[in-house]
Amino acid sequence: MSDDKKLTPRAEDFSAWYNDVVLRAELADYSPVRGCMVIRPEGYGIWERMQRALDDMFKATGHRNAYFPLFIPESFLRREAQHVEGFAPETAVVTRGGGKELEEPLVVRPTSETIIYAMFAKWVQSYRDLPLLINQWCNVVRWEMRTRLFLRTLEFLWQEGHTAHATHDEAEAEARQMLGIYRRFMESFMAMPVVTGQKTDAERFAGALRTYACEAMMQDNKALQASTSHNLGQNFARVFDLKFQTESGGTDFAWNTSWGASTRLIGGLVMTHGDDAGLRVPPKLATTEAVVVPIWRSDEEKSRVLGAAHALRTELAGRVRVHVDARDTMKPGAKYYEWEMRGVPVRIELGPRDLEKSQAVFVRRDTKAKQPVALDHVAAELETLLVTIQDDMLAAARTRREAHSIRGGITYDTFREIMDGEGAFVYAGWCGDGACEASIKEETKATIRVLPDEEFRSPEAPRTCLKCGRPSTSEAVWAKAY
Amino acid sequence: MSDDKKLTPRAEDFSAWYNDVVLRAELADYSPVRGCMVIRPEGYGIWERMQRALDDMFKATGHRNAYFPLFIPESFLRREAQHVEGFAPETAVVTRGGGKELEEPLVVRPTSETIIYAMFAKWVQSYRDLPLLINQWCNVVRWEMRTRLFLRTLEFLWQEGHTAHATHDEAEAEARQMLGIYRRFMESFMAMPVVTGQKTDAERFAGALRTYACEAMMQDNKALQASTSHNLGQNFARVFDLKFQTESGGTDFAWNTSWGASTRLIGGLVMTHGDDAGLRVPPKLATTEAVVVPIWRSDEEKSRVLGAAHALRTELAGRVRVHVDARDTMKPGAKYYEWEMRGVPVRIELGPRDLEKSQAVFVRRDTKAKQPVALDHVAAELETLLVTIQDDMLAAARTRREAHSIRGGITYDTFREIMDGEGAFVYAGWCGDGACEASIKEETKATIRVLPDEEFRSPEAPRTCLKCGRPSTSEAVWAKAY
Repeated sequence: MSDDKKLTPRAEDFSAWYNDVVLRAELADYSPVRGCMVIRPEGYGIWERMQRALDDMFKATGHRNAYFPLFIPESFLRREAQHVEGFAPETAVVTRGGGKELEEPLVVRPTSETIIYAMFAKWVQSYRDLPLLINQWCNVVRWEMRTRLFLRTLEFLWQEGHTAHATHDEAEAEARQMLGIYRRFMESFMAMPVVTGQKTDAERFAGALRTYACEAMMQDNKALQASTSHNLGQNFARVFDLKFQTESGGTDFAWNTSWGASTRLIGGLVMTHGDDAGLRVPPKLATTEAVVVPIWRSDEEKSRVLGAAHALRTELAGRVRVHVDARDTMKPGAKYYEWEMRGVPVRIELGPRDLEKSQAVFVRRDTKAKQPVALDHVAAELETLLVTIQDDMLAAARTRREAHSIRGGITYDTFREIMDGEGAFVYAGWCGDGACEASIKEETKATIRVLPDEEFRSPEAPRTCLKCGRPSTSEAVWAKAY
Repeated sequence: MSDDKKLTPRAEDFSAWYNDVVLRAELADYSPVRGCMVIRPEGYGIWERMQRALDDMFKATGHRNAYFPLFIPESFLRREAQHVEGFAPETAVVTRGGGKELEEPLVVRPTSETIIYAMFAKWVQSYRDLPLLINQWCNVVRWEMRTRLFLRTLEFLWQEGHTAHATHDEAEAEARQMLGIYRRFMESFMAMPVVTGQKTDAERFAGALRTYACEAMMQDNKALQASTSHNLGQNFARVFDLKFQTESGGTDFAWNTSWGASTRLIGGLVMTHGDDAGLRVPPKLATTEAVVVPIWRSDEEKSRVLGAAHALRTELAGRVRVHVDARDTMKPGAKYYEWEMRGVPVRIELGPRDLEKSQAVFVRRDTKAKQPVALDHVAAELETLLVTIQDDMLAAARTRREAHSIRGGITYDTFREIMDGEGAFVYAGWCGDGACEASIKEETKATIRVLPDEEFRSPEAPRTCLKCGRPSTSEAVWAKAY
């Protein structure tokens, strides 16, 4: 409204388009603090719906929320060797408190394994106290040098699940279960299909035994790591003395998992569904599922049309999240433009001619298709349409992803051309050698996103490594990534 | 369960009792970081219900949630003179980031007026952009030297509302409206009656024009400031250049309000309702409203009783938050003890003899009263009982408060005796002079909690100042406070 110039088209500059959408749809704004953003109500409303959906799924699987300190003593971070190597370079450190220099500096949590497992060690004595299934919604800070709204910021919001189990297999099952929950959330709520699988050693979480991830394809064919789930083994338990008395009377270290998803998902939503008119929000995550735009020219028309619009709102209350845009300082066209930018799934146009025909006109945000609907049937038709849109958005995203996924029979030269060009998810063989992985990354900037889970693997397993030609030990999904 | 020694009785040492309850009911625990606590699932569950209730009320009055950065440049805090004076001494400061010394240190937010109004200045151009009604749920840090679980910790969780308005009167109405919402929440959900009113200049928020507060009486007759709401005037708007074009074409600074409530409320809940057996949670805030404790001696009894307990749970699902305690490692008495400690409002005992009589036995946590209820009527009776308990808890707390409120006709000597002894809310005259206020505080540690709102004032206005005997300009509520 305050800015009527067009968005940068995706085809012209995808990255500029992304920033335009985030700012113009008022999802977020730059703050005066380097690398930190402000999440505006339009963006935060989506995050609240994401939180609610994930939180319900976590609770349905027996997890409970808790809250642990923001500050972590530097010495805690140092205790797990790989962990400190991974996180120490990007920490923010409090050295002054209450006007005095601190004896021991405090790190602003980049993730909370260390402080949480130190507490678990206090709470767990016996196998009867296990499993311990905890989740935390909070902010974390990682000192990034190059930042992007939602995708990479100094501070971000997330949830981090932390669990302790009596056996390796239970922890492994938990890590896999949570990966499945993330996948279900991303597909059912975000309409964003993902490939799941295991990370290579090079891409594993600092301190984990195994890391699993959901990887989504953005519209520029780059991958977004949308969430991770880690089997931490007994690494942290040993370091923080998280022991328990076993059922047979011995003692053992507990087995931990951790898993997280963040406000980065909002960036993923934009890059999965946005178009050159702005954002498209899947109905389940939209704070407003349908906006009624009344159309009038005279005062008499206005009162009739607004009356009908409010009647519609009353009828829909409790069934559909609906908003009536009754502003009289803007023309209908300007309103359409604004609601399209914000990605509201359905616009309902209602003018004097529609009233004469006892109808309203539905306009889908995803396809821009229009359809007249008898006023008597608006509620039922709208509910059906929202379900259809949710499903169609997922199907469209999956079709797009598959169109840009390349399986088998690709030479390394062709691979380089693709990665230099429009990008793709390339499924290819890998010898399992970190050296091949590293040199491909250096030459093409592409990385192994995951060693895909069975359902995503090619019907015929690749025989040779994409890079060195030696026998392949696993199929790998290669892509450039955010 | 892990610790069967009794709680310190309230009468023996109220403060030790409080810590015992918080730890033994597993609401919170000490962390390895000085002054920071861990909110455990039992405590966080109460906070989640508090959040949901407040958030619904905020949204029903047009507020939307957003998120602003954790870090505030030191220079921002300095811009408002009173504000920096109030908060600078208790800040935590980040001086290192990504391994380097920062050019400008970053303060971990103690409150967010400065960063939020700097953003508002970017977003507000015209009177059409007003009012701007924003709320944020987040963590804040204040470097306290003496800390108490929930009541005063270095880090705490809270919500802070921030609004901008076109006129003083609108801002004033907003500050008063939010005070009313807090009061309604505390009475209707927490069953904690409060006295509302205005703070004196000495107790006003650093940078505010006027501060309003809800003050609750704890069981040791001390006051707990349970929330505040501020009319900030144009103080911050001037400093952060938050200007707008008025309807008549001029420009003016906006008028701001801010208002907050924190996890301190959980401490208030404990000290309002707890008894020597532990916590008592009002039903509306209880994560578990009723716990079914099945009683058996033989395997045959066990299977019958558990069958009936699960049937009950199925019947209550969706109506009452119920839990069946089917653990077979504990005797019923130990279970009673544990659920009493945690404050679950109703215990439902179910044994073989009850089944023979087709009944269950309800035991109220607040009064310990027992009543048999026909199995056919459990759901309806339970819903009714939960409403009764909620109401009775509020009434009991109000009766206790009034029994320890003293109005009128009190000499300063008597006042000192009371404040040295068992404490009270003393309603007395005040000349309006800060010197009298300061010397009373020095001599008795009691402060003016509020200049009470009309409904709380004594029928006959006090004539003279409690301290100096000069004419009273306002009635004041005096008490020692947390």
